[in-house]
Amino acid sequence: MTPSPLAPARFPELPVIDGVRFATAAAGVRYQGRDDVMLALLAPGSAVAGVFTRSATRAAPVLDCQNKIGLPADGGAAIVVNSGNANAFTGREGVVATEAITAAVADTLGLDPKRVFSSSTGVIGELLAYDRIVGCLPDLKHRLDPGAINSAAAAIMTTDTFAKGACAEIEIDGKTVRIAGIAKGSGMISPDMATMLAYIFTDAAVDQNTLQTMVGQLSDVTFNCITVDSDTSTSDSVLVAATGAAQVRVTQSHGVFRDALHAVMLDLAHQVVRDGEGASKFIEIAVLGAKSTKDAHTHAMAIANSPLVKTAVAGEDPNWGRVVMAIGKSGAVADRDLLTIRFGDILVAENGWVAPSYREDEAAAYMKGSNLRIAVDLGIGAHSATVWTCDLTHGYIEINADYRS
Amino acid sequence: MTPSPLAPARFPELPVIDGVRFATAAAGVRYQGRDDVMLALLAPGSAVAGVFTRSATRAAPVLDCQNKIGLPADGGAAIVVNSGNANAFTGREGVVATEAITAAVADTLGLDPKRVFSSSTGVIGELLAYDRIVGCLPDLKHRLDPGAINSAAAAIMTTDTFAKGACAEIEIDGKTVRIAGIAKGSGMISPDMATMLAYIFTDAAVDQNTLQTMVGQLSDVTFNCITVDSDTSTSDSVLVAATGAAQVRVTQSHGVFRDALHAVMLDLAHQVVRDGEGASKFIEIAVLGAKSTKDAHTHAMAIANSPLVKTAVAGEDPNWGRVVMAIGKSGAVADRDLLTIRFGDILVAENGWVAPSYREDEAAAYMKGSNLRIAVDLGIGAHSATVWTCDLTHGYIEINADYRS
Repeated sequence: MTPSPLAPARFPELPVIDGVRFATAAAGVRYQGRDDVMLALLAPGSAVAGVFTRSATRAAPVLDCQNKIGLPADGGAAIVVNSGNANAFTGREGVVATEAITAAVADTLGLDPKRVFSSSTGVIGELLAYDRIVGCLPDLKHRLDPGAINSAAAAIMTTDTFAKGACAEIEIDGKTVRIAGIAKGSGMISPDMATMLAYIFTDAAVDQNTLQTMVGQLSDVTFNCITVDSDTSTSDSVLVAATGAAQVRVTQSHGVFRDALHAVMLDLAHQVVRDGEGASKFIEIAVLGAKSTKDAHTHAMAIANSPLVKTAVAGEDPNWGRVVMAIGKSGAVADRDLLTIRFGDILVAENGWVAPSYREDEAAAYMKGSNLRIAVDLGIGAHSATVWTCDLTHGYIEINADYRS
Repeated sequence: MTPSPLAPARFPELPVIDGVRFATAAAGVRYQGRDDVMLALLAPGSAVAGVFTRSATRAAPVLDCQNKIGLPADGGAAIVVNSGNANAFTGREGVVATEAITAAVADTLGLDPKRVFSSSTGVIGELLAYDRIVGCLPDLKHRLDPGAINSAAAAIMTTDTFAKGACAEIEIDGKTVRIAGIAKGSGMISPDMATMLAYIFTDAAVDQNTLQTMVGQLSDVTFNCITVDSDTSTSDSVLVAATGAAQVRVTQSHGVFRDALHAVMLDLAHQVVRDGEGASKFIEIAVLGAKSTKDAHTHAMAIANSPLVKTAVAGEDPNWGRVVMAIGKSGAVADRDLLTIRFGDILVAENGWVAPSYREDEAAAYMKGSNLRIAVDLGIGAHSATVWTCDLTHGYIEINADYRS
């Protein structure tokens, strides 16, 4: 598939994270001629934090991960992911499949099954041929490699047009700490707690509770602030593993680690939007001057999810009237006559109407860019929120009018 | 423009409503070569009820109507509507335009300005050339005609592909009561209190409070249960006028009148969906077995507004996994393992997974129809809700990627 026009120029050079090894295989779950399973083995003592979709119809592996996160356990841990089948809405059989996979991974690698986390992504409602995944495990075990994270990023893709990776390297107490992460996601993207799938690894030593708190807070300002189509997946999961191999202990007060993790999570979230189904424009939407952060987020998401705003951007039309409409419908507090709207640096509207300095040709020229920013100052309070989305094009219809068949 | 494939075969034969006269004119507000203003004059003693958008950024004429509805006033009344320009987000100038038009109508027809209701529909954020409308008024006055409701239905269209009308005729106390209504709407349709624009007339005598209560309640199960694209207009308005000319007094206890008005409102609401921008399928979505009516409505709207459900229907794909996803994300109470899903009469899923009797080819054949029904029984409580929507096609993108230019 042709990469999205918004794709980064290349996959980044991800550093090796001490204490993590990867392997991938072609299990033939659904796709032919490509890897569709990835296994990551984490060194003994690794902390694993996770945030997951709040969907009421979430998939069996999501429920399984949620039950396991934070349980006391010794030894190493593992993450196993397949693409092509989400094992979602598969009833009792879905639980059987998840348990079979995680038990087999535990058995193959000598781990406690409570420390094996699995994800499945792809079609909903079809039985997962878990025996194909189980059958690959001995081979996967033999090929575990600290440098294979690139292959892992590719193996978890579904409708993605490019593999997604991000990294950071920081110094703490004179020692180097590394963070590397991968993600997948393109459609059914409106994460409610986490995005489609993201796996992030660091060699810092972070205790379980600290890591979990930090990942939850950072998800709220990264993965939970993106939307492609307002549709929340049944499989959204973010797992962050800290191996401790760098011999650097991190606590909440280590702002430099938190900032680096934030940057990696935001980078991955942005890459998911840049691979939004059919996307031709990347759009940052900032809402300022709101009565509360929640109100600011509600307005920003109303703009980001409006089909009329998204199609206007696709048509390179600076149709700020649709931005006004979206604010009006959002349900959060706004006063029509206090709004200030900017497209990039261009002042579009103020005092309840178009700005005297506004020139349509200038705004139309701005809209031809690939990276756009819409900022709305509500003029009411001191709270703000920023979210990211893409436009709605014919490509989205083409991809989704018969994804399954 | 080619009529929507879901358009009714013909415009209905609307009865003359005693006490109402119509006229239309080509004021050249935005469109050329077609009527774009309609005037309706209501006999003295007419009651006028209205429900309007709850958008925080609603247009000047909407605010003006809301201020006037229910004010004590004598004499006749009038409704004046223009298409091509919504007079929305036009600041202080918008108020000036609305006041100029309603004052001129009152002056021309010898009415109290408090009894002149105006609506504007079309592009947002551009100044309304109200002098063009005012200039037509003397001519409109001379051509007022009880039989011109068809022209009125055409004059209020914007991106509509067909004019929308509905009627009912009932007997009460041995006398005939007639109801006739018109509506417009095609995109930016997710009414929050009323739909784009609808005007309904009856010769029954209904007092103001009774009519207002009845219209509010019936809007909640008709216009407030449709969505084309989840985007709520800044101009949504429904006005219902009762002239009393039939000499039949109606109270809330007159179930037959209420039922007839309900049927007319539902018919108009369905026609708006059938003219949804780019629509190729009309979809009824029923949610049963919910904990509350609000929960049922929330689930039904989540399904109706899901781009993934709408594109699946466009592709004639019985992709019930996306229905499960939409229920999961809606935020209302649901239990994945208690869901029962039907496409038409076909049992698709039950007990948290596909039904044993389900055959994909049968469901695929059903999806080829133009009128589809998706029913979800949550299996939790005794409340239900039904909403109506259309699919999401290339046509929607084409229409909206450059509507303004």
